[in-house]
Formats: sequence, C-alpha cells, structure tokens
Amino acid sequence: MTFYHPTISQGDTVLSKEESFHCIKVLRFQEGDDIEIYDGAGGIYLAKIIEGNPAKCRFDITSSTHAEPDPYRVHLAIAPTKNADRMEWMIEKCVEVGLHEISFLTCTNSERSRLRTDRLEKKMIAAMKQSRRPFATTINEMTEFNKFLSVLPDNTIKHVCHVPVAETATHLKNTIKNKNYVVMVGPEGDFSKKEIEACQSLGFIHTSLGHSRLRTETAGLVACHTLALCHF
Amino acid sequence: MTFYHPTISQGDTVLSKEESFHCIKVLRFQEGDDIEIYDGAGGIYLAKIIEGNPAKCRFDITSSTHAEPDPYRVHLAIAPTKNADRMEWMIEKCVEVGLHEISFLTCTNSERSRLRTDRLEKKMIAAMKQSRRPFATTINEMTEFNKFLSVLPDNTIKHVCHVPVAETATHLKNTIKNKNYVVMVGPEGDFSKKEIEACQSLGFIHTSLGHSRLRTETAGLVACHTLALCHF
Repeated sequence: MTFYHPTISQGDTVLSKEESFHCIKVLRFQEGDDIEIYDGAGGIYLAKIIEGNPAKCRFDITSSTHAEPDPYRVHLAIAPTKNADRMEWMIEKCVEVGLHEISFLTCTNSERSRLRTDRLEKKMIAAMKQSRRPFATTINEMTEFNKFLSVLPDNTIKHVCHVPVAETATHLKNTIKNKNYVVMVGPEGDFSKKEIEACQSLGFIHTSLGHSRLRTETAGLVACHTLALCHF
Repeated sequence: MTFYHPTISQGDTVLSKEESFHCIKVLRFQEGDDIEIYDGAGGIYLAKIIEGNPAKCRFDITSSTHAEPDPYRVHLAIAPTKNADRMEWMIEKCVEVGLHEISFLTCTNSERSRLRTDRLEKKMIAAMKQSRRPFATTINEMTEFNKFLSVLPDNTIKHVCHVPVAETATHLKNTIKNKNYVVMVGPEGDFSKKEIEACQSLGFIHTSLGHSRLRTETAGLVACHTLALCHF
C-alpha cells in the first residue's frame, strides 16, 4: 500500500495526520508492517512502521529509489465547468495519463468563479498513488485570465483551444517540438474574442484537438493524453 | 438544437415520445421552428416542425447531408466497474472522442454482472448530439467472456490490455495497420490467467496503453483516444 509524504526527503519520518489515520485506522497496518511512500517528486521509499499511532504514524526508511520523470511538462490552464464534479473527475484522469501543473482561470464567460482546490488536491494524491506515478501535480488557485497570461514563462509552447475550431488551427499532435507546454481550454461558453486576441498577441498557437466538439473537461484530458502519447 | 431519430431515413417523420417531449415541452419549440436531426448513421437532416405535439412531434425534412464516417472502427469490450457511474462517464467521453461499438463482459474477476444499458444508451445519445458526431455507438448487452470471444469476426486486430503490463507488450499506437480494432479491457481485479491464455490462443495482441496503471474506465477511454489520434 502506498502513502504520500512530500517532506520525507528532508528527514521527516512521520506520516501526516490524514495519512496516519488512513494507514493505521482504515487499513489496519501495525508496527513492523512494510509500507511504500511517495514524496511526489519521484522518490519511492520502502519503510517499516515503528509506531502505529493513528495520528502520527512513525516509520523507518528501509530503502529508496527514484523514478524517471516524464520527458516533457504540461501545464493545463482551464476555466472550471459549472459542475465541479467534472473538474474532480478530470483531475483524476489527467493525473493518470500525465499532468504536471494545472491553473484554473476566471474568464469573461466563466460559469464558476470558485473551486475547492483542497478537494482536487485529495483527488490528485489518490490518483497519483493509484496510477503508480510518484509525481505530484501542482494545483494552483483560481487566477484571473489576464493575470495568468502575464506570468507565463518564455520557454513554453503556448496553445489555446477553443470552438469553433478554425480551418487554420493546427492539431496539438503536430506541434511537438519543445518540452514545455501550456494548454489553455476555454469555459463552456468559450473564450471571448478579446481573450483569443490576447492569446494570439502573446504567440499562442491556435490548436485543435480533433474533429469533435469536446466538453471542457474532455478537452483538458484529451490535451494531456495527446501530449503523453506523442512523448511516449 | 439537435434531436435523434434512427428511422428518419425510412420516411418516418415523427420524433420519438422522448425526443418529442424534450423538443416541445422542455425546449419549447413550436410549429414552424427549424430543428436538426441525426439518424445515428451519419445522416444530418434539417427539418421544420409542422405539428408541435409533445408526444408525437411531426416535422418536414427541408434538407439533408451525410457526414464522413471515421476511417477506422473500434469495438471496446470491457468488464464493467463496480461503480456504474464510472461506466456512464466512460461512455460519454468515449463517444466524444470516437467509439463505434461496446460490449460489456462478465469475467472471472468481474465486480459487476448487471448493467443498465438503457441508461448508457441515453448517455450515448446525449454525447453524440453534444459532440456533433452524427454516428451512434452500438451498445451491446452484458456477455459472458468466452461467448464474446467465440463470435468475434476474423477481419479485426484484437488487443487485450491488462496489468501488470509485460515487457513484451506492444503500445497500442504501434499496432496501427488495419481499420477494425477490438480492444479488451479487464475488470478491476484484472483478467484471469485462463482468460489471458484464451485471448492469446485466438491471436490477441498483448497491448500496453502507456506507463501508468490506469483505472478500468480510463483504460477504455485512453484506448479509444489513442486509435482516434492515430487515424486523425
């Protein structure tokens, strides 16, 4: 069974309150039992429980390895759907196929301006363990569209996906030439004309994800999976 | 607004009870209004309502076109997840990215032996309209694993996906050479050894969907999207 402990590499050998409870109370692990721990940065630790405290489970590290990171990095920037469940579902699936960072945008046509990122964080951690990818996805708080654009690093290929897809749009799979991708996916009511123009002026590629008109959350997942597949 | 009418090409110009209710009662369309109708076989009809009956909405066809079918065909055979919602979610997403037929299997390690295919049918129709893909996905009733294997046509590339993925497994994206694919995805407890052997004896390819350990429903979607992307 796998647990998450982001500060284990700094010598901290006590599981968090939540992970301790899950380990000792829910899963009934005991002193002497072996567990696996991810640090969310690629570290995979094998450990032995030395104190089965359901609030502060203490362990000794017996060995550790480091997983190879993905050869690319995708930062998804998306306007949350009206239905928050769809974002939780999306996080789970995106983490399974590969997502390194996610930002949630407030756009002109946004249907939702608040999002429980703590709930998304839990989904992310569960999916990371379940899919056996020992890398945590960075989940950023909601940001205003223009603010997000103003802080983007230079060394990224920037994509904007919106409907209707213009004839001139390039399919995401045909843009593979860098290792850092930012993919923006608009709200259910799409990006405004002004937002599209702001992206274009910053050199965003107008990107297609295929022939279908995808739901917002499907577009986010399809973008992550397309990049994962192209870098496999 | 789009409606579904599978027998429109046979001259039937009345919407089903369900679609009539949705059109007249929910969306408040009236006599003289224009609607769009998919027949689920690629036909796209423009029509005018001539009788706004909420149980039997009658229309006149004003024009029709035919969409180009996908250049490949994927038949997904999957053991349903314990949680039926996950199958409903999967159908929606698979239809959005492209799925032509689906069968649900009863396997040795199945967690669920019944499934409300009528609910899946509704999800499929909604996703077909929403994604603007005028082709219906064929949804088959639950079948016993061995029975499913015994009726597979010859002209298909047959894939079996299971965990742990062997070193020798081929990634699905590297198997593109035909137009008809059958992809089998095992239950949460995986296919049994006997089931894997039965597949191998029938020439199934042992297929990988990537490095991650995917949930059953994610594996189904990832398989559909991989094939869609390779044929785009």
